[in-house]
Amino acid sequence: MTEFLLQNTHGSHFYMKTPSGHDIHVDASPENLGYDSAPRPMEYLIAGLGGCTGIDAVTILNKMRVNYDSFNLRLQTERSEEHPKKYTKIHVIYEFKGKDLPMDKLERAAQLSQEKYCGATATFRGSVDITYEVKVVE
Amino acid sequence: MTEFLLQNTHGSHFYMKTPSGHDIHVDASPENLGYDSAPRPMEYLIAGLGGCTGIDAVTILNKMRVNYDSFNLRLQTERSEEHPKKYTKIHVIYEFKGKDLPMDKLERAAQLSQEKYCGATATFRGSVDITYEVKVVE
Repeated sequence: MTEFLLQNTHGSHFYMKTPSGHDIHVDASPENLGYDSAPRPMEYLIAGLGGCTGIDAVTILNKMRVNYDSFNLRLQTERSEEHPKKYTKIHVIYEFKGKDLPMDKLERAAQLSQEKYCGATATFRGSVDITYEVKVVE
Repeated sequence: MTEFLLQNTHGSHFYMKTPSGHDIHVDASPENLGYDSAPRPMEYLIAGLGGCTGIDAVTILNKMRVNYDSFNLRLQTERSEEHPKKYTKIHVIYEFKGKDLPMDKLERAAQLSQEKYCGATATFRGSVDITYEVKVVE
C-alpha cells in the first residue's frame, strides 16, 4: 500500500510531494474558488495516461533499436456532458517523424504498451473506451 | 472532443501545455531512460483523482458555510503486482482539522463528490475499487 498526501493549502489549491520526490500542484478556476495557478485535475489524468504509454513506447523502441526523429502523443478525449463529467472515450495517437520507419515495430510497441505494460491504460480500461493508432509523419 | 498533445522532448521525458494554459512535465527513472526531472505518470493519476474530489469538497463546504482549520486528503493505493500494474484499490480519506465541525455536512460533501460530481472518481470507478471515509482530527 502506498499513501499519497494531498494538502489543501489555500482556496481550491492542493499540493503533493510525490513518492518519487517531486512536487505536484493542482488548482481550480476562480469560479471554483481556485487561483488558476496550476493544472486542473482532469488534465493530470491525461498527462498520466499519455506519459505512461509514451514512456513504454520509448523504452520498447529503444530495446528494438528503432530510431526516429520525433515522437508525439495526441490524446483525443470525450467527456460526459452531465455530472459526473468522466472521460468516456480516449483515442491515443502515437505520432512519429522519421524516414523509413519500421511500421510493424512501431505498432508492436504501441500494442505492447496498450495490452500488456501500461498501468495507467489498464486503470482506465473497463471504465473508458480507449482506442489507439500509430501514425508516421514524414 | 478535446485533444491533448504530449511531446517527447528527450529520453523518456514528456511535456504538455494543458488546455488551461499550464505546463506539465512527466519523466521516468533512469532505468526507464528518464532523467527523474518530474513526477511519474502513475503519480499524476492520484494527483488528478485527489485534486478533483478535493476541489469538490472545498466548493461544496464553502456553499454550506462550513469552516475548518485545515483539510488534507490521504489516498491509500494498491496496485497489481504483475504487468500491467494498474491501481486496483484506492481508499480516499478526507481529513479535517477544526473544533466542533459538523460531521454530517463533511460526510455529505464527500458523498456528493464521490457519487455525483467528481469526474475523475467516475473515470476510475468500474475499473478500480474506490472507497472513502471522513475523519476529523482535533
